[in-house]
Amino acid sequence: MQEDLERLFSDLKKRRPLVHHITNFVTVNDCANITLCVGGAPVMAEAKEEVAEMVSLAGALVLNIGTLRSEQVDSMLIAGRRANELGIPIIMDPVGAGATKYRTQTTLRLIQELKIAVLKGNAGEIGVLAGSGGTVRGVDSCGCKGDPAEIVCEFAKRIEATVVISGPTDTISDGRRSLLVDNGHELMGRISGTGCMASSIVGAFAAISKDHVLSSGAAMAAFGIAGENAAKNAKGPYSFKVRLFDEMARLTPKDLKERARIRFA
Amino acid sequence: MQEDLERLFSDLKKRRPLVHHITNFVTVNDCANITLCVGGAPVMAEAKEEVAEMVSLAGALVLNIGTLRSEQVDSMLIAGRRANELGIPIIMDPVGAGATKYRTQTTLRLIQELKIAVLKGNAGEIGVLAGSGGTVRGVDSCGCKGDPAEIVCEFAKRIEATVVISGPTDTISDGRRSLLVDNGHELMGRISGTGCMASSIVGAFAAISKDHVLSSGAAMAAFGIAGENAAKNAKGPYSFKVRLFDEMARLTPKDLKERARIRFA
Amino acid sequence: MQEDLERLFSDLKKRRPLVHHITNFVTVNDCANITLCVGGAPVMAEAKEEVAEMVSLAGALVLNIGTLRSEQVDSMLIAGRRANELGIPIIMDPVGAGATKYRTQTTLRLIQELKIAVLKGNAGEIGVLAGSGGTVRGVDSCGCKGDPAEIVCEFAKRIEATVVISGPTDTISDGRRSLLVDNGHELMGRISGTGCMASSIVGAFAAISKDHVLSSGAAMAAFGIAGENAAKNAKGPYSFKVRLFDEMARLTPKDLKERARIRFA
Repeated sequence: MQEDLERLFSDLKKRRPLVHHITNFVTVNDCANITLCVGGAPVMAEAKEEVAEMVSLAGALVLNIGTLRSEQVDSMLIAGRRANELGIPIIMDPVGAGATKYRTQTTLRLIQELKIAVLKGNAGEIGVLAGSGGTVRGVDSCGCKGDPAEIVCEFAKRIEATVVISGPTDTISDGRRSLLVDNGHELMGRISGTGCMASSIVGAFAAISKDHVLSSGAAMAAFGIAGENAAKNAKGPYSFKVRLFDEMARLTPKDLKERARIRFA
Repeated sequence: MQEDLERLFSDLKKRRPLVHHITNFVTVNDCANITLCVGGAPVMAEAKEEVAEMVSLAGALVLNIGTLRSEQVDSMLIAGRRANELGIPIIMDPVGAGATKYRTQTTLRLIQELKIAVLKGNAGEIGVLAGSGGTVRGVDSCGCKGDPAEIVCEFAKRIEATVVISGPTDTISDGRRSLLVDNGHELMGRISGTGCMASSIVGAFAAISKDHVLSSGAAMAAFGIAGENAAKNAKGPYSFKVRLFDEMARLTPKDLKERARIRFA
Repeated sequence: MQEDLERLFSDLKKRRPLVHHITNFVTVNDCANITLCVGGAPVMAEAKEEVAEMVSLAGALVLNIGTLRSEQVDSMLIAGRRANELGIPIIMDPVGAGATKYRTQTTLRLIQELKIAVLKGNAGEIGVLAGSGGTVRGVDSCGCKGDPAEIVCEFAKRIEATVVISGPTDTISDGRRSLLVDNGHELMGRISGTGCMASSIVGAFAAISKDHVLSSGAAMAAFGIAGENAAKNAKGPYSFKVRLFDEMARLTPKDLKERARIRFA
């Protein structure tokens, strides 16, 4: 598998996929910069007048509900339908689903009306969406009921998507194959935006391969390794953040091959 | 008083209050990160469909009009009424009030329709709102007419809130007791967002104690000390900003006790 | 010319012009901070209720369509008409024009309905708008057909504005005089927001002189020199970004005089 990761990341850097985001206004700049650092090209566009045209240029569409508004839902549906027509993978980050009904229900509606390639959330969000139970406070996970590995597998089967629960160990499944990724550093949880950035990276990798279990595993491992590198000698959370972007930009396909701690579940 | 500050900050770190922001899109990321650094949990949500539910999970609600839009006003009223019902303190930052009638009048309306716990602005903004006179250019204070200490005291009495004028010396009053805080560094005025970040920190502390004169004093002192520490060896305004977050995260309750320069007026 | 650059930058620092932005939510914080670093005062306001009043306080108005929405177009027109009445220069950054019809047509409409002082884009954007041909992918230029120097000159004449194509060499013309600026560093293309920041700086300088060829040249040179300085010992794109702000704040009028690589075409 390690060779597959290296090849994927190498292809990403060669092809520089356009990653169209419809996302929140809190972490949008971080998403743009991390997309550049990993080797993609970010674009943020959400006017209903242009999203169908913009997404048609893209290699992936990232939908993130961090500061959801009703006009955004319309735009997500328009862009998402066009992406589905063109076979462009959609990555869904249900930020804060479970904290309010609006977020939960909107996510479930988007999952139902669109073909989602990868649904990536924290344990609380995915637990709530899967119906197995979870707790979300604001945008923070307070955990899910049951075993994450089982939840992602069953939920992935049901919604016919790859599902990712991020955490100290990331759990990834499409219902048939499941991966666990152990890369990362606890400082990543001390700054705003790492969850959103991970989804941008998952989007950039999803543009490269139709095997979204592998591409998501590569993305989570790559970001996690960048976090491990950034944590060395970090003086605090924000200087860690600065280093996180630098390390993401510096990471090579060879590094990913050698450092990814990834295994089939 | 110094022991009270230490205890408040210690409680904040233990309780990790959720601070719900309805805020501007310029400094929102800074507000999220500084809330994390001080020990709180930020959430930004402004859809009218969800703000009542989101605020009910929160320890404080921060309303910031930095890029005010009419839909935001509706959401601020919905969230604010629910916060008032539940006894959740509301912090109001009237960014740019006085620069345009829209900002001045919206702030006065919010103060009238909601019970505000803490109103925090610069001298120009508070001077304009209090009716004593002030000048605001864009979002910058050009000062107020008269003595800030008298203005906050009288205005606080009138609107039954704690009022804070930020500046080289911060002036805080609920109309009965007044505090002055001398912490801070002039580099804090050289970057965008320190006023907004201060309001987020005031919000995090307001979630911990109903004594909002004290909690606001603790907040302004804590942020000011972080600024003083960050200014050491800073190479410019943005590397100062990076250090400001790191130093806010590193500040301990004991540091606050020992370094706060705070006194009754 | 070098003495003119020095004087312009010196005047900018003395007068600290207010630069009113109606801009995108991706890079808005970067625009605010770079405006502060160069010596201006940023304000971001886009509610139709207040933009006419806010712009009347300003030295320049920057319109940036990076995350264009229909309400923003209305506000741009209201603010722009008031700016025109008051003789306040308008800087237009047509981010992503050419990538979607909505961006291209909105830009052309704004150019037609408002008197634009400076139109600044990349080669692809300006090529598309000028009708000479260009390619834009997301918000990235894939180049224009023909010679940039000829395109800016002819397009500037036609729309009666100063036109800037940014790139390794920036090309600036009002149809009579043309300037080339060779400052800059390739790392500036590796982070999000440098194009938008350049427009903010062009806005700050445009507030100081009615000679917008010269003021735009000074702006592009100043930002480019800051980039050159920031690139020294940079460890990656984001630590470069931190240094870019610091170096912009540190740059003196004398540095600009001595280091600007600017010449008539």
